[in-house]
Amino acid sequence: MSASQIEPFDAIDIIRTKRDGGAVEEGALRWMVDAYTRGFVADSQMAAFAMAVLLNGMERDEIRVLTDAMINSGERMSFASLGKRTVDKHSTGGVGDKITLPLAPLVAAFGVAVPQLSGRGLGHTGGTLDKLESIPGWRAALSNEELFAQLADIGAVICAAGTGLAPADKKLYALRDVTGTVEAIPLIASSIMSKKIAEGTDALVLDVKFGGGAFMRDINDARELARTMVALGTDSGVATTALLTDMNVPLGLAIGNANEVRESVEVLAGGGPKDVVELTVALAREMLALAGQPDADVEAALADGRAMDTWRAMIRAQDGDPDAALPTARETHTVTADRDGVLAEQLALPFGIAAWRLGAGRARAQDPVQHAAGIDLHAKPGDEVRAGQPLFTLSADEPSRFERALSALDGAWRIDDAGTYEASGPLIRERITA
Amino acid sequence: MSASQIEPFDAIDIIRTKRDGGAVEEGALRWMVDAYTRGFVADSQMAAFAMAVLLNGMERDEIRVLTDAMINSGERMSFASLGKRTVDKHSTGGVGDKITLPLAPLVAAFGVAVPQLSGRGLGHTGGTLDKLESIPGWRAALSNEELFAQLADIGAVICAAGTGLAPADKKLYALRDVTGTVEAIPLIASSIMSKKIAEGTDALVLDVKFGGGAFMRDINDARELARTMVALGTDSGVATTALLTDMNVPLGLAIGNANEVRESVEVLAGGGPKDVVELTVALAREMLALAGQPDADVEAALADGRAMDTWRAMIRAQDGDPDAALPTARETHTVTADRDGVLAEQLALPFGIAAWRLGAGRARAQDPVQHAAGIDLHAKPGDEVRAGQPLFTLSADEPSRFERALSALDGAWRIDDAGTYEASGPLIRERITA
Repeated sequence: MSASQIEPFDAIDIIRTKRDGGAVEEGALRWMVDAYTRGFVADSQMAAFAMAVLLNGMERDEIRVLTDAMINSGERMSFASLGKRTVDKHSTGGVGDKITLPLAPLVAAFGVAVPQLSGRGLGHTGGTLDKLESIPGWRAALSNEELFAQLADIGAVICAAGTGLAPADKKLYALRDVTGTVEAIPLIASSIMSKKIAEGTDALVLDVKFGGGAFMRDINDARELARTMVALGTDSGVATTALLTDMNVPLGLAIGNANEVRESVEVLAGGGPKDVVELTVALAREMLALAGQPDADVEAALADGRAMDTWRAMIRAQDGDPDAALPTARETHTVTADRDGVLAEQLALPFGIAAWRLGAGRARAQDPVQHAAGIDLHAKPGDEVRAGQPLFTLSADEPSRFERALSALDGAWRIDDAGTYEASGPLIRERITA
Repeated sequence: MSASQIEPFDAIDIIRTKRDGGAVEEGALRWMVDAYTRGFVADSQMAAFAMAVLLNGMERDEIRVLTDAMINSGERMSFASLGKRTVDKHSTGGVGDKITLPLAPLVAAFGVAVPQLSGRGLGHTGGTLDKLESIPGWRAALSNEELFAQLADIGAVICAAGTGLAPADKKLYALRDVTGTVEAIPLIASSIMSKKIAEGTDALVLDVKFGGGAFMRDINDARELARTMVALGTDSGVATTALLTDMNVPLGLAIGNANEVRESVEVLAGGGPKDVVELTVALAREMLALAGQPDADVEAALADGRAMDTWRAMIRAQDGDPDAALPTARETHTVTADRDGVLAEQLALPFGIAAWRLGAGRARAQDPVQHAAGIDLHAKPGDEVRAGQPLFTLSADEPSRFERALSALDGAWRIDDAGTYEASGPLIRERITA
């Protein structure tokens, strides 16, 4: 439906309907999104509406219409001309979450196209493009022609999302950010899914994280978000599966940018930390199942170098040098165990905040990140440690950053008596399908 | 507390606190109001906050702080130099509510100062200043010197409120109006009371209306609002009493401007419709009780002309001619009974909307009102009527307005068989004190 076909509605009536717990009818909701994007509905009105949505919720059909209206606010891509199945992955963000890096080339190694149109990081969870930009020469911005050619030739592309996708979402997201309405599940779901659906992927696998280092602290909220997004994808013709995964502990041993690339390359070389491998393999299986290859031998492609070959081609195609040395920090600071025992706790959020304070993340969209800044973990929960053994190393370009990073880490880990450790549950907790 | 003494707070944290059902602490709430008034907190942020207040409420102490912060945004008047007790009345607005007109001179006739600083009407409930401006020559704008002199000499003043009182409320009210957050009881209460307390009155009587023609449809909401405002006044040292009054039926027989002045003069002359007299007398007794005259013989002052003398002096002091003919409309249209029986229903809201469409009210603040436009009722619920007997007369300057006014009145009255009428309850339903 184009704007000119839409009847004019009254923004105040629409706000009142949601405020009083009702469902906003389709034409009114489409008008609201369109009029807001064009500036006829004021920020203040959309903010009141967003707060009412946060507190009173939205029905499945309202979320579908809202998402579709946001898609219709911008351009819509199509990969139909590629002649390959396209499958995308989205993570709600976590500490040490570099999974996209090994995952995209791994899945592409099976002849599937993986267009990972990404954003930059804000806050403690980091951004995929920031991580890749620590590779000398690599560039995030591709023209549409370059994107299609790389998908056709190599299959895997990780690049910056164009600004033409769902501009209504961009405007609404900036508003939610300053009005305390980020946490509304219908708005999170429609924000993520509008961009993914507009991108034109055939299938989508969602990594919805819960726990202290995740956007959703509570698994029940994460499950609701996952179900909402799976329903949205399904209703829009995008085959969608979600995994609910634990983000109470940092993922892998590296938190930062260059060190996360290093860890990703280890996984592509058949090694790497157990949890990173487990999640990469699980997500690859889901993506390949949606692309029609439910029996693909994912581990083999990591072991025999096919995923690594795709990675190297992908980095080279975007002017990166896969063999170049990654940046290292000027200063490091190592924290050691003060007693013998077992590492019982390692809280994702303080480690994420500490890495961010070291320079790995940005506070404002225009700030640069320091690619060598971050944290390398030398032990994970459940590991036996001896007094004096290194627990983790902080890296930064300026030593003045250590103090604030260390203050974030106060109480972020705990060593208990050996033999007392009990794991809290599997990394991959639930699988949600349509 | 001045702005420079207030610590900086984070608007998003404050919004989140209220969103999550918490109470905002005093310093934060004072900062929010001050920063919003100065433009450091955006309209969108205040709109989200207002929606959270509407849906999650505020504690008594939060409402007290919010009101005090709004008072502190502007000037504070004091009538201490007058040497008289001051007592004010505020109505939440209704159809045919002209009570302020006879009430102010009636109470002032007992030597009490009655400063009625009023606004103009928006929507169907009309404004006191609009009604008085139908008197040739009368002017609403007084300087502070004129206001004080008139209070000292005559005791009664009805004039335009200065713009210096509670500017934060003015800004917040305009925002609430377009964001579906007008109906939040803590915000209504603080809006009304901040202006009344800033005005510096010793005592205040509130006429809180409920029913179809009132701002609050439901008596329970009206009771909550009344209790909140009585608590606020009490907490701020203003002796405050509220009456809960029925606004399902228009008050009196006149709805408009000039015709409401005419009806008010009838009351001041010892006549007038029973319901208008009843409410005027009841409110006058409450005001005089708060001013230390609980045994004042209010009816006597209406019967013996003392209230009328004060009215005439009050109108003359503001350059009005109390003997001048009031404007009459160019066109009238009378609706008659279609059967014998009893007038069983006369719904305030449609009659208010019809009068507004006839030109008695304004849609935008800058629109003029047509002083002679309105409705005169010839029968009230419970009155026996004969087929062909006039039920009410519409007046307008342009005959083209009748059709839209009549369409608002479709279904707004009903004639039942004679002898079947049962009154719904007393006009004055409850009295609320601290």
